[in-house]
Amino acid sequence: MPLIVAFDEPVEAELAARLCGIVDGIKVGLPAVIRGGLEWAREVSRAAGSCEGLRILDLKLADIGHVMRLSVEPFIGYYDGFIAHSFVGGEGSLDELKSYLDHHGARLVLVASMSHPGSRDVYDRALDFIMEVIERVDPWGIVAPATRPSIIGRLRARFASKKILSPGVGAQGARPGYALRAGADYEIVGRAITGASDPLAAAKSIIEAQEEVVRGGVEEDG
Amino acid sequence: MPLIVAFDEPVEAELAARLCGIVDGIKVGLPAVIRGGLEWAREVSRAAGSCEGLRILDLKLADIGHVMRLSVEPFIGYYDGFIAHSFVGGEGSLDELKSYLDHHGARLVLVASMSHPGSRDVYDRALDFIMEVIERVDPWGIVAPATRPSIIGRLRARFASKKILSPGVGAQGARPGYALRAGADYEIVGRAITGASDPLAAAKSIIEAQEEVVRGGVEEDG
Repeated sequence: MPLIVAFDEPVEAELAARLCGIVDGIKVGLPAVIRGGLEWAREVSRAAGSCEGLRILDLKLADIGHVMRLSVEPFIGYYDGFIAHSFVGGEGSLDELKSYLDHHGARLVLVASMSHPGSRDVYDRALDFIMEVIERVDPWGIVAPATRPSIIGRLRARFASKKILSPGVGAQGARPGYALRAGADYEIVGRAITGASDPLAAAKSIIEAQEEVVRGGVEEDG
Repeated sequence: MPLIVAFDEPVEAELAARLCGIVDGIKVGLPAVIRGGLEWAREVSRAAGSCEGLRILDLKLADIGHVMRLSVEPFIGYYDGFIAHSFVGGEGSLDELKSYLDHHGARLVLVASMSHPGSRDVYDRALDFIMEVIERVDPWGIVAPATRPSIIGRLRARFASKKILSPGVGAQGARPGYALRAGADYEIVGRAITGASDPLAAAKSIIEAQEEVVRGGVEEDG
């Protein structure tokens, strides 16, 4: 089952290796990079490199192109995918980041909507404009919240070939499997795995829960 | 004249001390933190602490509350202000960050619009919603682009008592002084100062240019 584990705190880098073969990838977040440092983030990448899983760096980039390029440059060759906000738009920003990542054989992943209630204040109201940006910038993947399957459905309908990554499973309230059933390609789980006393067992149990929902063994969520 | 110097690359920390008494503050950006590391960012804070200038950390935060709190926590006590994006909304995000910063006596600064052309794709179209978020979250300051004085004017009209910080002066095309004249409280200059062979002389020359415009010695920009 397609599960990505979010490292938002500087956990033992070796955990990335131990998760190999169990999950589909890891996603390293900004606070983990700040606290763990650049060398820790590279060590996690090397540990995760013992299998074929995705290595995604989630700085939630949202700046002008110049600043975003400076931010990702130290991670090129270590991470396969980089998350940025679609909200910042193309010219002078995401267009430059996309060219830079293309040039280095890395993938861009754009946030289309978020998992918390406040996403309704602005982000979700601007979804039509956001989708125009995604259309034009043409990233490899999109981030859409597991907590709101209807948005995943709209994005899946419009962007048939793009990967959809869904955070919000676990601590934020969405149950495993429902985002996949709504059209997501990966579900992202953080604290429920990295904060567990046995992270591998926690990951396996989430995968079982995903399987049950995706195979239709669980009734539609209301 | 109210000038803030942006450090987007890990320049010598001592530059922050040398700029004391000349400029009104420094702003340290995400790529500088990534490349220089947490200890470098704290060293810059200590160097800047030799005067009363603002010390702003510009991670362009745009995440759920939990992740943003984890991101700023290592900088509490070192930086006075923290920049986040207003487009992420309140509940579960900026509300939590605001409470956290209030509790620690630190200031929140929210981006309302950006300096690059792509800001028109989504950000500027959502300005009414953005202003609602700013109204409700009630930050100390707002970031608005020097490259588009009309947006500064709209924000100044609506938020009379909030500080407005304007990037986009210098390398991004806006000339010194015009954002101030449109209603900004501070202009932010990065590369034109940090990349100069004599950063102090560059800062002084920008301040002179600001003075000339603000005192009305230069005709209105078209």
